[in-house]
Amino acid sequence: MSLFDLPIEQLRSYLPDRDEPADFDDFWSRTLAEAGRFDLAAEFTPYDLPLPGVEVYDVSFAGWGGHRIHGWFILPRGVQEPVPCVMHYIGYSGGRGFPKDHLLWPAAGYAVFVMETRGHGGASPGSPGVTGDPHGSADVQAPGMMTRGILDPEDYYYRRVFTDAARAVDVAAAHPAVDADRIVVSGGSQGGAIAQATAALRPAVRAALVDVPFLTHFRRAVEITDRDPYQELVRFLASRREGAEQVFRTLSYFDGLNFAARGRVPVLYSVALMDYVCPPSTVFAAHNHWQGPKEITVWPWNGHEGGSGYQTEEQVRYLHKLLAG
Amino acid sequence: MSLFDLPIEQLRSYLPDRDEPADFDDFWSRTLAEAGRFDLAAEFTPYDLPLPGVEVYDVSFAGWGGHRIHGWFILPRGVQEPVPCVMHYIGYSGGRGFPKDHLLWPAAGYAVFVMETRGHGGASPGSPGVTGDPHGSADVQAPGMMTRGILDPEDYYYRRVFTDAARAVDVAAAHPAVDADRIVVSGGSQGGAIAQATAALRPAVRAALVDVPFLTHFRRAVEITDRDPYQELVRFLASRREGAEQVFRTLSYFDGLNFAARGRVPVLYSVALMDYVCPPSTVFAAHNHWQGPKEITVWPWNGHEGGSGYQTEEQVRYLHKLLAG
Amino acid sequence: MSLFDLPIEQLRSYLPDRDEPADFDDFWSRTLAEAGRFDLAAEFTPYDLPLPGVEVYDVSFAGWGGHRIHGWFILPRGVQEPVPCVMHYIGYSGGRGFPKDHLLWPAAGYAVFVMETRGHGGASPGSPGVTGDPHGSADVQAPGMMTRGILDPEDYYYRRVFTDAARAVDVAAAHPAVDADRIVVSGGSQGGAIAQATAALRPAVRAALVDVPFLTHFRRAVEITDRDPYQELVRFLASRREGAEQVFRTLSYFDGLNFAARGRVPVLYSVALMDYVCPPSTVFAAHNHWQGPKEITVWPWNGHEGGSGYQTEEQVRYLHKLLAG
Amino acid sequence: MSLFDLPIEQLRSYLPDRDEPADFDDFWSRTLAEAGRFDLAAEFTPYDLPLPGVEVYDVSFAGWGGHRIHGWFILPRGVQEPVPCVMHYIGYSGGRGFPKDHLLWPAAGYAVFVMETRGHGGASPGSPGVTGDPHGSADVQAPGMMTRGILDPEDYYYRRVFTDAARAVDVAAAHPAVDADRIVVSGGSQGGAIAQATAALRPAVRAALVDVPFLTHFRRAVEITDRDPYQELVRFLASRREGAEQVFRTLSYFDGLNFAARGRVPVLYSVALMDYVCPPSTVFAAHNHWQGPKEITVWPWNGHEGGSGYQTEEQVRYLHKLLAG
Amino acid sequence: MSLFDLPIEQLRSYLPDRDEPADFDDFWSRTLAEAGRFDLAAEFTPYDLPLPGVEVYDVSFAGWGGHRIHGWFILPRGVQEPVPCVMHYIGYSGGRGFPKDHLLWPAAGYAVFVMETRGHGGASPGSPGVTGDPHGSADVQAPGMMTRGILDPEDYYYRRVFTDAARAVDVAAAHPAVDADRIVVSGGSQGGAIAQATAALRPAVRAALVDVPFLTHFRRAVEITDRDPYQELVRFLASRREGAEQVFRTLSYFDGLNFAARGRVPVLYSVALMDYVCPPSTVFAAHNHWQGPKEITVWPWNGHEGGSGYQTEEQVRYLHKLLAG
Amino acid sequence: MSLFDLPIEQLRSYLPDRDEPADFDDFWSRTLAEAGRFDLAAEFTPYDLPLPGVEVYDVSFAGWGGHRIHGWFILPRGVQEPVPCVMHYIGYSGGRGFPKDHLLWPAAGYAVFVMETRGHGGASPGSPGVTGDPHGSADVQAPGMMTRGILDPEDYYYRRVFTDAARAVDVAAAHPAVDADRIVVSGGSQGGAIAQATAALRPAVRAALVDVPFLTHFRRAVEITDRDPYQELVRFLASRREGAEQVFRTLSYFDGLNFAARGRVPVLYSVALMDYVCPPSTVFAAHNHWQGPKEITVWPWNGHEGGSGYQTEEQVRYLHKLLAG
Repeated sequence: MSLFDLPIEQLRSYLPDRDEPADFDDFWSRTLAEAGRFDLAAEFTPYDLPLPGVEVYDVSFAGWGGHRIHGWFILPRGVQEPVPCVMHYIGYSGGRGFPKDHLLWPAAGYAVFVMETRGHGGASPGSPGVTGDPHGSADVQAPGMMTRGILDPEDYYYRRVFTDAARAVDVAAAHPAVDADRIVVSGGSQGGAIAQATAALRPAVRAALVDVPFLTHFRRAVEITDRDPYQELVRFLASRREGAEQVFRTLSYFDGLNFAARGRVPVLYSVALMDYVCPPSTVFAAHNHWQGPKEITVWPWNGHEGGSGYQTEEQVRYLHKLLAG
Repeated sequence: MSLFDLPIEQLRSYLPDRDEPADFDDFWSRTLAEAGRFDLAAEFTPYDLPLPGVEVYDVSFAGWGGHRIHGWFILPRGVQEPVPCVMHYIGYSGGRGFPKDHLLWPAAGYAVFVMETRGHGGASPGSPGVTGDPHGSADVQAPGMMTRGILDPEDYYYRRVFTDAARAVDVAAAHPAVDADRIVVSGGSQGGAIAQATAALRPAVRAALVDVPFLTHFRRAVEITDRDPYQELVRFLASRREGAEQVFRTLSYFDGLNFAARGRVPVLYSVALMDYVCPPSTVFAAHNHWQGPKEITVWPWNGHEGGSGYQTEEQVRYLHKLLAG
Repeated sequence: MSLFDLPIEQLRSYLPDRDEPADFDDFWSRTLAEAGRFDLAAEFTPYDLPLPGVEVYDVSFAGWGGHRIHGWFILPRGVQEPVPCVMHYIGYSGGRGFPKDHLLWPAAGYAVFVMETRGHGGASPGSPGVTGDPHGSADVQAPGMMTRGILDPEDYYYRRVFTDAARAVDVAAAHPAVDADRIVVSGGSQGGAIAQATAALRPAVRAALVDVPFLTHFRRAVEITDRDPYQELVRFLASRREGAEQVFRTLSYFDGLNFAARGRVPVLYSVALMDYVCPPSTVFAAHNHWQGPKEITVWPWNGHEGGSGYQTEEQVRYLHKLLAG
Repeated sequence: MSLFDLPIEQLRSYLPDRDEPADFDDFWSRTLAEAGRFDLAAEFTPYDLPLPGVEVYDVSFAGWGGHRIHGWFILPRGVQEPVPCVMHYIGYSGGRGFPKDHLLWPAAGYAVFVMETRGHGGASPGSPGVTGDPHGSADVQAPGMMTRGILDPEDYYYRRVFTDAARAVDVAAAHPAVDADRIVVSGGSQGGAIAQATAALRPAVRAALVDVPFLTHFRRAVEITDRDPYQELVRFLASRREGAEQVFRTLSYFDGLNFAARGRVPVLYSVALMDYVCPPSTVFAAHNHWQGPKEITVWPWNGHEGGSGYQTEEQVRYLHKLLAG
Repeated sequence: MSLFDLPIEQLRSYLPDRDEPADFDDFWSRTLAEAGRFDLAAEFTPYDLPLPGVEVYDVSFAGWGGHRIHGWFILPRGVQEPVPCVMHYIGYSGGRGFPKDHLLWPAAGYAVFVMETRGHGGASPGSPGVTGDPHGSADVQAPGMMTRGILDPEDYYYRRVFTDAARAVDVAAAHPAVDADRIVVSGGSQGGAIAQATAALRPAVRAALVDVPFLTHFRRAVEITDRDPYQELVRFLASRREGAEQVFRTLSYFDGLNFAARGRVPVLYSVALMDYVCPPSTVFAAHNHWQGPKEITVWPWNGHEGGSGYQTEEQVRYLHKLLAG
Repeated sequence: MSLFDLPIEQLRSYLPDRDEPADFDDFWSRTLAEAGRFDLAAEFTPYDLPLPGVEVYDVSFAGWGGHRIHGWFILPRGVQEPVPCVMHYIGYSGGRGFPKDHLLWPAAGYAVFVMETRGHGGASPGSPGVTGDPHGSADVQAPGMMTRGILDPEDYYYRRVFTDAARAVDVAAAHPAVDADRIVVSGGSQGGAIAQATAALRPAVRAALVDVPFLTHFRRAVEITDRDPYQELVRFLASRREGAEQVFRTLSYFDGLNFAARGRVPVLYSVALMDYVCPPSTVFAAHNHWQGPKEITVWPWNGHEGGSGYQTEEQVRYLHKLLAG
């Protein structure tokens, strides 16, 4: 790995123009309103594993289109009062994994709500998933999920995912053990992009933790990186040539830059300077557009693994201070 | 490439047991009957390209579930009487490509009907496709199409594809320029598997041309090859561990061995002895189970490209003799 | 793939200096004159394949040094008057392939003359060739053909190839079914380089179709790409160190820039912005130097596959308009 | 991945001869006795992270040679009585990682003691380590740790590691919060090998959890797999040719087969049939030699990731039953 | 690397049938006789490098067809009487390199004659060559030299090479500083194959040193290895399908097995059991067919690098004993 | 390979700032003084190989910490007066190899002293080594030697190596057959770095031959290359995140730039413009900082192999002129 993007001094102040459709807010209001017609229908099924220290639930709820979205909901055992809840969204290709992978926030005294990304987790032996995407596509896609329905914002895959994510916040907020005023969205890579979007779509969340976010500053990303999953987009455009303008129009409704520009809650970003997958300029661009109180941790020698557990511990401390206050 | 499978002498007589569900024929009768409730609704749109030697149509029709399936239909210009028609099914990941790729059969005096495989062709710049698979999946899948809906034969992706293929034969048969008694199914790899299945599902076809077929003798294939696309199956099983029995039950309704055992029309197979993708034993197994008149061309020094244009010219001669007779 | 070369705005006007030897034109006049001492001795052998729609000939003629050069000559069946003829030159490592690969121009009402590139096609199972290069080399070469005889312009491999190509035009022009005033040269990659050169060496051709040409702007190519076949040159220079100046002197007689600067017939270029094999600046450099009427199709999301069938259909329309006029 | 080792039926009963030096037990008694001269000198430093649900300690103690060995010791917060303790040993190249990675056993009501493998963790951004191996080597080694000191059993790297591991059990046993009668050793790959050895060296442990163990049945392993880390051994032998006999003599003191043959406590093994790194025959060989009560979980479609979280949950249930009893 | 070929016990006695044409000896007598019509025309040019310890000559002579073949001839400085001479033939793709690479035999008191393999060395920065192969080929070839002219024994590349090698012995024998009764042929891989052949074609040589020979037992080699350069043959056969029988007929005149069966001088072979390039069974087959006094050194843990410098020192000792006697 | 670094014109004058600790000279004086307390204890054991032309000794001596360092010492046989001696240091991962690899300088009339780099040579079948690094490390390291002890200049691996190298000069100087006033240090890559350092630490040497040196201009190297071994540093920093400043502080005591700035003897550098391993700007930076008489050979078309034997012959001529004068 080497330093392939802009020098750090330029990154600090990199604030590119955003390509935002005039009806961006309308699009999302309408989308969420439509989805709102489906009852959340949340179900919390106790998970059969002898873990006296926590309460583990196999949770599901009605996401976009009323489709069942699965996840984990884990509480510290024996809490007396509503606790904060960390929403955790998953990186590309992974599923929700196992309860053992999500015990940090309960150990910190919070609930954690792990939402599966629909359709992912089918080839991820270490973190499997079970949530499908029952909305087929009338058009072809490059393998992977990034181009499913990409010719039309209404049909684009991430319209469903971001809606699922916003509704997951509602599910958490409605749970009696959760303090609805202290819900935090979080995730890395794709999960970071979802957290970033959700912070804009559910502005009542208390904070956001966004690590090396994907789906952000698409134009630049596809121009400077040749790694997956951004390359799914390039492969699609290489095959469906007539559609580039249409594709970028769709993406303008989903670009992390536009969500970041609507971010008003406290946020802790992280970025890695040798990240070939989600190049640092795309991350700084989002951070620099964010409107609320913001911090960013820079990992100069890392690739897409970013800050890894070091960053997670930063987050534990960050939330400890923020949520106690 | 090296000789990694059984020696040629053993391949010649390799006749493994088949895993066939009791209701195999019922399953397919019912499937085709259900699909039959949708009108074919075929549309032939003249394609705008100045090619005086042929008539090119952008064709579409209602496949499984009434979904629009696209393809090419190309006729030699100025034929007076109905001509034979070669159905051509496409290999994994490819779309229908361009008319220029399908001019051989018209030059031979036949019509050709090129059917897209739904969902494929999204990352194939040289042979793009446009047909989506609007039937979403309530379960996860490994990227690619091979595991979409694989936990249930009713939902499995190839149930839709094979049904599309059988109905494409009906579309061709109904065209006034086609001699419905001289329809031939053909294809290589995935296309070979589709042709093999269609010959069983539409037994009135005149012949089949099956090159290095995929989706055949699944059990052995996943045990001896580590190449895609069979590995999509392994990756799925590696992640969704509880489902192996269920997966193989589903596959038993789609295994080329079971279709080959119902093949009664003349068939010309081809096989390559260094084919790591569709190992020669899986191809011979199908050929050896075929019930009708059969020939097989063996390419000893080739991989999955098989006989390439040499085999195609074999097919031209084979059909010339067969269809003239 | 990513955007690794100059930005598109700079590419549009990129017009580098050319390194042209003073005796460039003499060199080629003399070369063609010498070759002209051999009778063309063209032979057209009907190819034995039952294709009523076309007439297929296995053609051969005396190329440079009188060596037999092989190819296909295919006519629409039953034409009454001389038709235009498209000369088709082949990309690196490929042979002429099969008649099935070359049926587009006959379907468009033209003859097509497919010339093999001597020595290529020996490891290309999908498009084999049979034409050797009987002129051995007194010097070593890097594997591949690009450095054969490269220390001396007289002995350089492409001297023979470009001469073969010019003489192939003569063979076509002499055929009674061909309208000698409407011969078009075409090809992609190496084939594009040959077409580009032939348009300069046989200025009576009617037009040129040049896709992602190789062998053009050598200096820049070897500096910015690390892909084959340009890397054959680097590997040779890495081993035969004393020879760099001599090598570039030889190449100056063969550089596409110098042929392009002599191009006076109408030309349709294509270029791909993510083409690591023949970088876009090398293609634009040639196009920008071209003297005749010119157009260029830009494929922003593609690699060396360039426009693929989309570009071919552009060419069909382009010729349709041009040759009808 | 494919099935490359023996068929499952043969694996079930595969019981190869073992190569065991006559002084195997002496060697280890002496080694542990020597190490015993160093006081354990355990230190438990509270780790500064706001995690109210657990007590996290940065632990260190004097391992082989008195060298400081680091790890995590994590307790469920607020336990009243001594709890069982799971010793967790780490796979090749990984360090101890972060507390967040080890919260399952505390959630299950047990302590967990995570021991670093000396020298590992220096290039593992997701699970870093800090424990060096201060014992240099008077001989060369192939990069990695597998051949450090391999020409002499006294100097071999794993002599130090296995001794560290046995002493870590002593450290855990001496902690007031731990029930010394219910200590369980566990690990996967290299960690599985260490657990396997430790169960023999500290026979008072209550049980062992051994996943896809490395360092077992060396002879067969280097003959049938070409993957790292076993290939470190092959690369060393390829360079230090005179030493093969000496190398295998050394390894006979460390071969998991010889430890397994001394295993008398209950054990739960796991094995993956497509594991190219630690081939299934080497795992079954150990399991089949084990003398105590034993079970083995077979993962037919997995590689070296083995059972992953599925297997971990098996272990939770297994221990729940065993330790409650 | 792993043990992929027969077990060592079977290798020791592996004696496969040979495919030998009836006129094998005639073919070679005639070939050498034809070449004999060209005067050797050896030239020894002192090489301009200040090396007082040796005399270095840039040597050239007329090989097959009278073509100039280049090499090094190096003598210990100041020898009074004729010395033994080691002929050294080069491995695939390498050239003669530099005098510094060939100083061992002079240090041992012998002359060394390093013959370039015509056409090789063009992409080998560390051991460049300058000898071309001026005999072009009327047929295509796969890149590399292995298939040049392979459709006809008369035109096959190695006919020229083996003839060059036999004549190089004559050049050495005629040099006044060389003791013509003590000439030894040697080489590894391709060089081993050439030495093996030369020992049969020039039976007056005193001994042969044959390391991991290539071009031996072709049939088995192409069936069990997928590595270059044997794969050049497979790629050619994959493309020129009609020619397999013809190809193997040609190869029967060049197969090391047939030369080994004519080997009557003392030979020292070496073989590596993990050699994927020249599999051990092909080497043992030759050794086992050798008719003269023979030894073989087995390197159990090595790939195609074989015994490397260890084996060279074996050879120094072997010749010291043999030539002193 | 392509031109990825600065253009040649900028390289010629590239003179970056150096990061030099105030106590650089003290550090090294102290280090060498400490080592000086150990007697050199050199042993020259005649090597048992029948090579009448040279005297070969297996040499060892007490390096840093008194550890035995091994090497070859080779003399032209029968010299009457003390001869110059070339110290040869080895590239990364290689051992000393075999006497046959080091016969050039004896043929040139000089002695050669080949020093092993402690710890290297364990996975290098063609040039094995036997010298270990008995100084273990209390901290982790990335596999390879580059980060061993890197958190502290006192413990850093290259402190020991450079000290070994300086003392090897002393060993050579003390040998009766060596002219202590004509000792030359040499090496490529890591060997070049060692030679560069030794020329500063033992300023009485007569000259230095430095090829494509490693360990020079660390900051830039890790920013622009993604190749090993510089990447060992990046992988370490990616894992031990807290330590970057500490790491670069350590490296400032070992950076070739700081040694070059102390170089006062004549030096012949070489550099390759396509060297991705030791980028040309890092080499020119050192050359441009060198204070003594200097030359640099530029290899424009080569990667890390640099000038190979061509450069070695340059060196023979360079020393011939220099040492004769």
